Amino acid sequence: MQALMIIAHGSRRAASNQEIFDLIDILSTKTTQYIKVVAAFLELATPSISESLDDCVKCGVSEVIVLPYFLSAGRHVSEDIEHALAPKREEYPQLSITIKPHIGAADGMADMLLNLATKG
Amino acid sequence: MQALMIIAHGSRRAASNQEIFDLIDILSTKTTQYIKVVAAFLELATPSISESLDDCVKCGVSEVIVLPYFLSAGRHVSEDIEHALAPKREEYPQLSITIKPHIGAADGMADMLLNLATKG
Repeated sequence: MQALMIIAHGSRRAASNQEIFDLIDILSTKTTQYIKVVAAFLELATPSISESLDDCVKCGVSEVIVLPYFLSAGRHVSEDIEHALAPKREEYPQLSITIKPHIGAADGMADMLLNLATKG
Repeated sequence: MQALMIIAHGSRRAASNQEIFDLIDILSTKTTQYIKVVAAFLELATPSISESLDDCVKCGVSEVIVLPYFLSAGRHVSEDIEHALAPKREEYPQLSITIKPHIGAADGMADMLLNLATKG
């Protein structure tokens, strides 16, 4: 029972947070591998990482794949996300939480950029 | 004579800026369509957008495809990039500058995330 969690920074600008929810909707239609695809924000927006994990557990999720939606491996990626996850790992010792690389490090990034440059 | 310009925010953290230069290197090896693939930073790092455009013109570039390396369509994307480009459009009226959508809006983003979730 896997869930996919996109962790974004969060913004004071509602439209920026909405872009994440729109992405979640697209992801949900593209895959049946996860029983839930959820957003979580590090700060400035909700749901928080804690709230989103609570929601996953309530729905019977046993494994969460975390994708840090960040372009560079700054403090948010290297420290803040793990810091937010740590108390939840204690709260839900049965829950498997796997953090994937931030998207700026994704293999497909260069190809996606070249496509974007050509197609718009 | 096309150039591809990746415009990133720029960071006080040198490693974050280096991630952009590494991406430029990868892009350069993946395409022969552009005579130059260059980075430019909105703030906090160099080269600036102005400097990078000067460099393109010196190398005979006649058309620059600009990719905003931003995940959300905030003020940086909607205003600051165009604001930095405007005086250069006046300085180089013969230079064609086309701004593509920010990468958070790229069609391939969802598929890239699903790949990242599976492969790591």
